Amino acid sequence: MTEPVRRRGRPSRTESGGGPGRRERIIAAAREEFAERGYEKTSVRGIAKAAGVDPALVHHYFGTKEQVFAASIEVAFAPALEAPSVLTDGSLDDVGERLTRFILGIWENPATRAPLLAILRSAVNNEVAAGVFRRLVAAQLLARIGRRLDLPEQEAELRAALAAAQLVGTAMLRYVIKVEPLASADVEVLVARLAPVVQGHLTGA
Amino acid sequence: MTEPVRRRGRPSRTESGGGPGRRERIIAAAREEFAERGYEKTSVRGIAKAAGVDPALVHHYFGTKEQVFAASIEVAFAPALEAPSVLTDGSLDDVGERLTRFILGIWENPATRAPLLAILRSAVNNEVAAGVFRRLVAAQLLARIGRRLDLPEQEAELRAALAAAQLVGTAMLRYVIKVEPLASADVEVLVARLAPVVQGHLTGA
Repeated sequence: MTEPVRRRGRPSRTESGGGPGRRERIIAAAREEFAERGYEKTSVRGIAKAAGVDPALVHHYFGTKEQVFAASIEVAFAPALEAPSVLTDGSLDDVGERLTRFILGIWENPATRAPLLAILRSAVNNEVAAGVFRRLVAAQLLARIGRRLDLPEQEAELRAALAAAQLVGTAMLRYVIKVEPLASADVEVLVARLAPVVQGHLTGA
Repeated sequence: MTEPVRRRGRPSRTESGGGPGRRERIIAAAREEFAERGYEKTSVRGIAKAAGVDPALVHHYFGTKEQVFAASIEVAFAPALEAPSVLTDGSLDDVGERLTRFILGIWENPATRAPLLAILRSAVNNEVAAGVFRRLVAAQLLARIGRRLDLPEQEAELRAALAAAQLVGTAMLRYVIKVEPLASADVEVLVARLAPVVQGHLTGA
């Protein structure tokens, strides 16, 4: 059963290379399926079909649908997950501005905005997807920003979450709901308004 | 065709009163349908069936599906739309704290959280629903807060939107995605952190 199903898919240049090529093709297909249909309506079978592989291979590489989703989020989220390293490179004195520019930059770029929007949609609509998103955001982003702050862990992570809330809310109103005058405000105007707030949450009194 | 379909519905106490009772029943049914199925999968026919009326009556009272959605949002959103009057009652000096308490209060209350969550889900998933939400938020909430600020309209509404962004983002991370330690933080701790930020956006230098 495996081979005929797999062969129905478009041949990939990397397919001859075996595992890695198919793994990437599955992730790409998963991202598209989750983005288009949302978490609930996406199936491992559908992802396998779009990737031109057998469903058993999807299970072999990733496990359950939830795990495929987590893997596809990690890939889509990779630019955002680089934030902590961006943050650790510079001084704490202007960490607010760097984080604000970084997050707005991801949303301003259509290539990274689309997968973020897909993740946000899935997370708002589905508890399982929200759980995956929550663990990634909490473990990868907030905890790592928090560690930079040299404060008790609970306090540091609350500060990171409140800073993130300002940026997540701005993204929601500007890029998703498109409320004016926020939606068409100049990015530099927003950086000037938001950076001190983010800085205050992270390092303020 | 009208009467038999209508009669299939549960009789309402106010039905004998005519229009108003049926109008309210349609809105209640619409709220439930939109909350359960989301905007796209809800139909005027389904709302009519749930309300026990003919679809033509739904069109007669409200018009298109988009207009039924707008009406059901206005009802669900009524507590939030009272915010401006809450705000205009007090001093501008502690408007940040009053607005923060007000918005967190709506989200802390399960009875108002459910419809807000349904609206947020629809708005994130569907352009038409986002448009309805955008017009309501912009026209009813931000513009009215903005008018209180005694600043040029564009500047006042940008300030109101940035303040709203902090609160919307906090609600997203705390009540929807449930990121810790924000999700289980004490409300008073959050008011102490958020009120100065909201105040700063609205009346700061």
